[in-house]
Order: sequence, then structure tokens, then C-alpha cells
Amino acid sequence: MLPPMMTIAALNAAYAGGHTPLDVVEEVIRRRDAIPDRAVFITETPAEALRAAAQAVMAGPRDLPLWGIPFAVKDNIDVAGLPTTAACPAYAYAPDQDATVIARLRAAGAIVIGKTNLDQFATGLNGTRSPHGAPRSVFSADHVSGGSSSGSAVAVASGLCAFALGTDTAGSGRVPAAFNNLVGIKPTPGLVPNTGVIPACRSVDVVTVLAGSVEDGVAVRRVMDGFDAADPFSRPAVPAALPPRLRIGVLHGTEREFFGNAEVEALYDAAIARAQALGATILPFDYAPFREAAALLYEGPWVAERLAAVEGFLGTNADDFDPTVRRIIEGAKGRTAVEAFNGLYRLKAICQQVAPVWEAVDVLMLPTVPTTCTVVEMLADPITRNSQFGRYTNFVNLMGLAAIAVPAGFGPSGLPAGVTLVGPAFSDDALAPFAAALHAAAACGAGRDRQAQVPAAPLPELPSGWLPIAVVGAHLTDMPLNHELTGPGGVRLSETTTSPEYRLYALPGTVPLKPGLLHDPAFTGPGIAVEVWALPAAAFGAFVSRIPAPLGIGKLTLADGSAVSGFLCEAHALDGAEEITSFGGWRAYLSSNALREST
Amino acid sequence: MLPPMMTIAALNAAYAGGHTPLDVVEEVIRRRDAIPDRAVFITETPAEALRAAAQAVMAGPRDLPLWGIPFAVKDNIDVAGLPTTAACPAYAYAPDQDATVIARLRAAGAIVIGKTNLDQFATGLNGTRSPHGAPRSVFSADHVSGGSSSGSAVAVASGLCAFALGTDTAGSGRVPAAFNNLVGIKPTPGLVPNTGVIPACRSVDVVTVLAGSVEDGVAVRRVMDGFDAADPFSRPAVPAALPPRLRIGVLHGTEREFFGNAEVEALYDAAIARAQALGATILPFDYAPFREAAALLYEGPWVAERLAAVEGFLGTNADDFDPTVRRIIEGAKGRTAVEAFNGLYRLKAICQQVAPVWEAVDVLMLPTVPTTCTVVEMLADPITRNSQFGRYTNFVNLMGLAAIAVPAGFGPSGLPAGVTLVGPAFSDDALAPFAAALHAAAACGAGRDRQAQVPAAPLPELPSGWLPIAVVGAHLTDMPLNHELTGPGGVRLSETTTSPEYRLYALPGTVPLKPGLLHDPAFTGPGIAVEVWALPAAAFGAFVSRIPAPLGIGKLTLADGSAVSGFLCEAHALDGAEEITSFGGWRAYLSSNALREST
Repeated sequence: MLPPMMTIAALNAAYAGGHTPLDVVEEVIRRRDAIPDRAVFITETPAEALRAAAQAVMAGPRDLPLWGIPFAVKDNIDVAGLPTTAACPAYAYAPDQDATVIARLRAAGAIVIGKTNLDQFATGLNGTRSPHGAPRSVFSADHVSGGSSSGSAVAVASGLCAFALGTDTAGSGRVPAAFNNLVGIKPTPGLVPNTGVIPACRSVDVVTVLAGSVEDGVAVRRVMDGFDAADPFSRPAVPAALPPRLRIGVLHGTEREFFGNAEVEALYDAAIARAQALGATILPFDYAPFREAAALLYEGPWVAERLAAVEGFLGTNADDFDPTVRRIIEGAKGRTAVEAFNGLYRLKAICQQVAPVWEAVDVLMLPTVPTTCTVVEMLADPITRNSQFGRYTNFVNLMGLAAIAVPAGFGPSGLPAGVTLVGPAFSDDALAPFAAALHAAAACGAGRDRQAQVPAAPLPELPSGWLPIAVVGAHLTDMPLNHELTGPGGVRLSETTTSPEYRLYALPGTVPLKPGLLHDPAFTGPGIAVEVWALPAAAFGAFVSRIPAPLGIGKLTLADGSAVSGFLCEAHALDGAEEITSFGGWRAYLSSNALREST
Repeated sequence: MLPPMMTIAALNAAYAGGHTPLDVVEEVIRRRDAIPDRAVFITETPAEALRAAAQAVMAGPRDLPLWGIPFAVKDNIDVAGLPTTAACPAYAYAPDQDATVIARLRAAGAIVIGKTNLDQFATGLNGTRSPHGAPRSVFSADHVSGGSSSGSAVAVASGLCAFALGTDTAGSGRVPAAFNNLVGIKPTPGLVPNTGVIPACRSVDVVTVLAGSVEDGVAVRRVMDGFDAADPFSRPAVPAALPPRLRIGVLHGTEREFFGNAEVEALYDAAIARAQALGATILPFDYAPFREAAALLYEGPWVAERLAAVEGFLGTNADDFDPTVRRIIEGAKGRTAVEAFNGLYRLKAICQQVAPVWEAVDVLMLPTVPTTCTVVEMLADPITRNSQFGRYTNFVNLMGLAAIAVPAGFGPSGLPAGVTLVGPAFSDDALAPFAAALHAAAACGAGRDRQAQVPAAPLPELPSGWLPIAVVGAHLTDMPLNHELTGPGGVRLSETTTSPEYRLYALPGTVPLKPGLLHDPAFTGPGIAVEVWALPAAAFGAFVSRIPAPLGIGKLTLADGSAVSGFLCEAHALDGAEEITSFGGWRAYLSSNALREST
């Protein structure tokens, strides 16, 4: 009934074909019982409770966005009815309320299949720091799953559910995605509420989605989005746009560090080549200041946030901690408030230092994890190995950025690698189309199914929040007023012509010389050459408000029959004006005119 | 040659009348020598250096915005050529560079007349914590000047210069404005660079302007504005708009606390009455959570920022501190990083808690200082008295808000009081017109000159960043598409008619029924009724982009001859349409039409 990977599309297709959520949870139960990795769950939703949940969904409205979609939840996020443990049994409690994100997902029809294993208190990027054992990459019984959202990643990659929730402070929602051929949606801090989530570093934690595709992950994130006054760090989002043709910053020189893993390095380079083939401009940038910011997270005062989160429990239950986790958190004892503020100053200074990078590129593309290792290797040197894993992830939340980790294919060893697109705050939606295209282009499937078809929606031409405008005269490329479009960051989308129903005139007495376009439905001409540009909405508004009479902005019909905002001219102004329709456009008219005048 | 208060307008008038900056600095020298309060300056620019500076300005370009305008600088801001002391002689150093703000002001033609006294290390709101003595309010030799920008306020209020720079963490740029009948421009944190300013609490410090009028203060702030990558907390500004008719939140109930000072309370109520008379809607709000945030600044971990700023110096020179300042800063020793983060969490939670206040009101109007006291009283109980002064100022920078303090008149005692308008981040420009009107309406002059005329520019109709649009049909008030204007927060500015050159038609087949407006310069008609609305630029852009053919947005000429963006119609669509110009407008036509159909 269902393919190896349980995508939202596959589930919806099954539902459209007459299957029910009850059928799906039976399949979930079968798969959950059958996977060899017993370290994935800390608490499974009991089979009977799963069936009851499916029946409750079936009794409710059918048009919910996640109707009957099963998902797993990292065990540092509250689900009413299941204990929350943070992988520390002595810390366990029974939440009486869902975390805000869980409440929103359940209200959308999704079904919780269990609470997944994690690096204790989300302190780690490797998956081995848990008394419940270390989940393994679905591609190797020896290799770490990545963490801290270890069980969530393996659950999705094993086809047990359509998606799973992780959390991410240093990279916990991205690293395990890379090791399990998954997409990791890492929202901008503040976009998705943390109410009901055990803090790691409360000022920079985010809830993430692990999924088989960008499409699935973003659909889930959109259900979880939205301001929550109960979360001190929740912020109203102001979506950031990205231009249609991305300028992508990539590692270069000595900042290309893969700790000897040539396989991951080759997969990174292949991903860069795919990005270029998708139309992106590839530009090297200096990662050094980002690396310094990354180091602040564990080496600076932020580790005191981890202590703040569990201070009372640590005081009474120090021996109940994983030894490595305890060592890290106790390292914050004795850190002073002065150090905390000095760390904040340093971070802010680095953010200023990298501002020019964000002028030069639109997004960064980084290896999600530069290398991997076995569980044995990790346990032998847990701090150093973990720190290597976080090399390209640690800075992202400190700097308040959005990220999407996508699969980047497999090396000869049979292990996967990933790359992460990092964009400005609240570029979460804007990042998605390119991330999806990059994943599809890698042709590496999703999770355990390396042959799976990954949805590759075409890249949209227009960034969200931008508006198109057709120009015919002095605003064309290289013309005197073109700077009114390029100044506020406008981008040229296409060159085309109007439908045949338009006439063009040279407006007498205009400075600079301008044409007037007239819509005449009774006329059939050659069509008038136009350029379609796009501007952010505010710049579009300001542009329109500056246009002097007799010009204005109406709707033009283009050669392909589509309508777009564009220049029109009041009819009275064309009385006695020279009709130049036969030239087919303003540029052609000016060339002929210049020729006439100069001869 | 100059009035008692040395405003920019008065100086420019003098220059227009043939006087020179050299004349002005001679007057500055005379006044500076003559004021009785010898605690105003820590270092005066020597007379010869002042004359040289005037001559340098005279040798330069004449069209600088602050050409020949003398100003004083709080002595925690670097001015190359004068020592910086922060009112701690042992701490003094000779900066080799101007602070960024000083460099910008000097490049604009302004002349530094000296470095002013302050509460040591800007730690205080009263002006008594300095080895250089306590400046006094210009209205009482017994009363405190307010601080920490004490000398700067007294210098301006005494007419020694056109403006002075202060700094403001807890209220240091606002409190002394209130005690000296001045305007205090307190920018949004991050708007004006702090490079070259000795930090108090580096994450929330701002440079302020003390001036005789909002007009002068804002003009100066605009010269200082602008991103500076060398300041970790500098931010690119995104100006926030305020609606034309402000909803103003005021204190009520038990949160009206004036510590027994009925005079200040009466002046606050009078200011509220003036705000109402100026067209504002007055709404009570709950100050309690703001008060809790205010308390965090000195009682919470932020005092560790003060320690971070001087830690090394305190270690070697503890005895060189003012005893009260030392006591406060040493109070931060032993504060932990965990406390720092817990304080941050609490602040963020309070900001969420007050978000509904900012939905209900556009700005807050608070007493700048709820009471005053003599120098003797302050020295007798320095912590409690100072804390009273900060009751309505301490929260503002912690919450990242903009503020303008304006005079609110004098009580029977002859002492002045002030009120402060507090607006959202980056509403600095948007706050100014109402603040100016409120000051002018108080009719209390400026500084020592209680009879001075204060410029009262008319309130602008249009918030900055908003765009006007004239509508003629289905978008009129109560018409079917009016929600497209009100939905995104549009406001109606006026009702008027077009010039006589417009014809109106009923467009056949439109849903909802719409008119088409045609500009016909050869026609003289009654003029067509329009409503002029305003929208934020992005909403304006989205509005225009949704308009279907044959309608569009061009420029209309109104009855008063002004041009405004407004609806036009493609001429071809009017062929065969019913001309309804004689009705004078769409509403009149519909009424008659409805009448016709219903009879």
C-alpha cells in the first residue's frame, strides 16, 4: 500500500485510493515493530492509542492539511499523554499539555507515533549520548545517526512516519538529516514557538522538521508557524524575499575543512556544480568569521544557557546525567555575567563583520557535516568529534538565520552527505524552491529509499512579496530611468512583447523622452517590446507613486495572453503625438531616430 | 545679536544677516565665561581653538547642514584634541579619533565648545555623582540638573550652544531635559552609532541630543544617523510609520506614581489634555509590566555590563570611583552568566506580555521624571532618589524603543516638568511632528527662555513611508471594495473633488459595479468627488498590482491643483459607457440609480 518512504504525497494518494488512517497506523505499527534499530524510540505511542488516534482523526473534518499523517516527536518536546524525558530517565515528567507545535500539528490532523531518542538534553550532534543507546545511520549499523535529533531522523529515514520533529541549537536538526539522506528544515529562530520544549540554549533553540522532501518539510513547518506570546523568543515573521537567480556563497581556500573526508568534499563540490546548473551564481566567501561565531556556542558563555535550563536538576541529580553531557553543562559553572555580555558583544561584532558577505551573496551553501564516524570512534573522543560535526552548523542560530539541509548524494562508501542552504532571517519560504530543486537534482532519493522520486517543483520566477511590472520606455535596460528599477534591487524577469492590441507613441516634450502605450482592442499590430521586472512591494508602491501624468500603471496583456502591471498613457496626451507602433518598441524607434538625426 | 536660547534657526538667521561663525564663537565664549554654574564643563574648548574652528568652518563649503552651529559634548564621547574622562580624572585618556557621531557632526559644520560634566561613567540620572560638582537645574540653584547628561543639558538650557550630545541607558538623555525645559531626542538603540563612546550598558546605550526644539534635535540626529559596522549594536534602520491620528497610552490607577509631587502630576495631566486637543485619542494602559522591565536595568544582570565596561580599571583604581557609582558597579561582581541569561529571558517574556499594549496604542506618553529634588536631598539618599527618577525611563532602551522628551510647562514652584513620547523601534522620525506640536502647545518656551517661540510645524497629514491614493468608486468609504484600503491599515486623509477636467462613466459589466474616470483637458465639468486615502508603501504596491484592466493608477489633479495618485480608466473601455459626470461623483450616481431602480 505504501512505498518505503512514507511521504505526505504517498499517504494522500493512499487516502484518495480508499485507504484510511487506521490502515496507515497499522502499517506504522508493523514497520515500527520491524526495524532492527531499537534505539530509535524512548516511548512508543501504544498500538491501541495509535488506532484510537486514527479513529479520532477519521471522525473529524477531512480537509485538514495533515489529515492522518503520522509523525514522531523528539523526546524534549511535550506530548500530552506521553512522558517527556530529554533522554534522562530521572528527569522524566508527564506533561499535561501539548507543546504549542504539537497542538497545532494535531489540530491539523497529524498523529503522534512516539517520542524519539536524542543526545541527552539535546546536548550533542552525534546521537550517542543517551542511556537508551545510540541510533545508527540507516545506511550503516556502525555509523552514528547524527544528533541530537537522532531517533527522529532514523524514524523518518526508515519509513516509519512522514516526518518527525527535531530541535536545533547547534545543528541538531541538520546533522542527522545529512547522515540519513533527509531534508532538515531549520526555521529562523522565533518563527516556530518553543512553548513546551525543554530548552537547550533558550535564546537560540528552534524546533525543526525532518522529512523526505523540502515540500513535506515546509508544509509541516507552515502548520507550526506563527507568533506565540507564551514563548519569550517568538517573533512575528516578516518574510524575506530572495532574488530569482541566487548568488550562492561557498567555502574556499583553507576554510574548506573536511577533516580528511574526501568523499564528503567531493559530494560538496558536486552539489555546487548542481547549484550552478540550476542557474545560481557561485561565489567564494570567507568562512573564518562565521567559524569564530560557531565556536562561541560551546566555547563561549552560551553554554550557561544549558546550565540555566537544568540548574536545579543538576544540583540534585548530577549522577543521572550522561557523563559527557554533564561535563559540558558543568563547564558553565563559574561563568560570570560579565563573560556572558562580553560573548554577546563579540557575537554582535562578528555579525557586523560579515554584513558585507550578505551584500555579496543571497545564501550560503555549506557542507551540512564535513565528515562522519562510527559510534566507536565517537565514544573514543566525544568532544573533538562532536565539535567537527558542528563546524558548519553552530553559527546559524546564533546569527538568527534560516537554513534548509538537503541530501547531496552518496559516496563510494555507501554513506550519504548533505549540504545546507543558509539564508537571512525569515527567508524560510524563499529558500525552499531552490532547496527542493537541489535535492531533486541530486537524484539520491530520500531516507532509506535511494530510488525515491523527489518532488521538484519548478523554481518560481518571482520571490514572494515581490511584484512584476512591465516597462516599455525610459525604464528599459540601459535607458535613463532604468536606475529606478535597479536602485531598489529590482530584477529583470523576462523580455517579451505585448499582445497585438497596443499602439506606441512618442510623447512630445517629455524629459527624458518617453513613449506612451495605448490599448486599442480593435487594433492588430506587431506587439510592443516590453521588459518585465520585479520589485519588492514597497519599492513597487514608491515607483508607482512617482510616475507623473499622463503616464500610469494599469494591466497590460502580454504576447502569451497573461496580464501584468505595466505602463499605460492617458489617451488625451496622445492627440497629435507621433505613432511609432511600426517600430515594434521604444528601443528600435530610438535607434532609427538617432540614425536619422545623426545623418 | 542672538536670543537667550541659541537655536539653529536663530544662528542661521544671524548668518543670513551677515554674521559669521567667528562672531558666534565669540558670543559662546562670553556666555560660557559668564554662566554662574561652574560644574557644567569638565573641559572647555580653549577660546583660541574655538576661533580656529570657526575659521576652518568659514573656509569650507557654506551649504553644510550644521554650518557654524556650536555644540557641547558629554564627556564620555571622544572628541579628538580634548581628553575623555567620563567624570573620572584617573580614567582620562586623549582620544586620537573623534567618535563616529562627532566626526559626522563636524563634517556637517558643527563646532565643539567643550566636554560636559556627567554622573561618572554615565551611572546615574541625577547629576551629583561627579568629582567636578553637581550642575544645577537652570531654574533652581538648589535642585539637581538631572543626569547623567547633566552638563550637556545645562549648557543648552543656558544658551551656550544650539545643542549638546548626551547618552542614555536608563534615561540619561531624557531626565535632564525635563529638569531644564529642553527636548531630549532619544533614538532607537542601534540607530546612532556608539563607536567612540564609553559604554555604560553597551547593549542598550544610545547617543542622544539635548536641544531647544524637536526640530533642532531631529535635524542633529539625522546628521548622526546611519549604520556603522564598527559598532556591534548598530543596525540598518527600517523607519516605522505612525498613523496620522495617534492613539496615546497614558498612566492610570495605581501606576500613576509621582512620589507625592502633585505639581508634576498636574503638568502630566495638562499635557494629556493638550495631546487630546491636538487630535490624539487618549487610552489608559497598564504600566506594571513596563515597570518590571525598568527594574531589571539596575536590579537585574544588566549592571554587569557596567562592570564589563570598566572591569580592568576597577581592579586597579577602585578608590578613584565616585563611592555611589563604585557601589553600583561592584554590585555586579559575582553575578553569573546563568543570571544574565535568566534576566534576558525575563525581559523577553515581558516584551511579549506588553505586545497587546502596542496593538492598542501607537505611542506611550509618560511623565519624563515623576518628581525632582534638591542636591542635598539626592546626596542624602542617592540610590532611592535616583531610582524614582528612572521610574518611567528605564524600560525604554531595554525594549529597543524610540523616545522624545518634551517640556510640559512649569509648576507654581517655578520648576519645569516634561513628558516623553515613547514609540516603537525606529519610529524616531514618525514621533517628531506630534512631539513638536505638543511642545509648542505647552507654550513654555525652551531652556532658560520661557517666552521663546517654539517652532510648531503643522502635523503632516501623511506618515513617512506612506503613499496617498485618490479613489472614486468601489473603494470609497462603505463601498464594496473599501476593505482593500482599511484591511492593510489605510487611513482616509480627506474628501475633495478632482479639477474640472475629469469625466466619469459607469463601466458596463463590472462586478462590483465600478466607474471609470477620464482626464479630458478640453472639458470643464463639476469635478468628480474623490476620497484621498493613504497606505503604507508595500500595501500601496500590492493594491495597485491587484487592479484589473481597464483600470489603473495614474496622477489625478485635485480641485486645489495638487496631483495625487488615483484611479484612471483606459479610454477604449468608455466607448458606449454611460457618462455620469453630471452627478459629480459615484456615490451621488448610485443614490439616484438606486432610487430609479427601486421606484
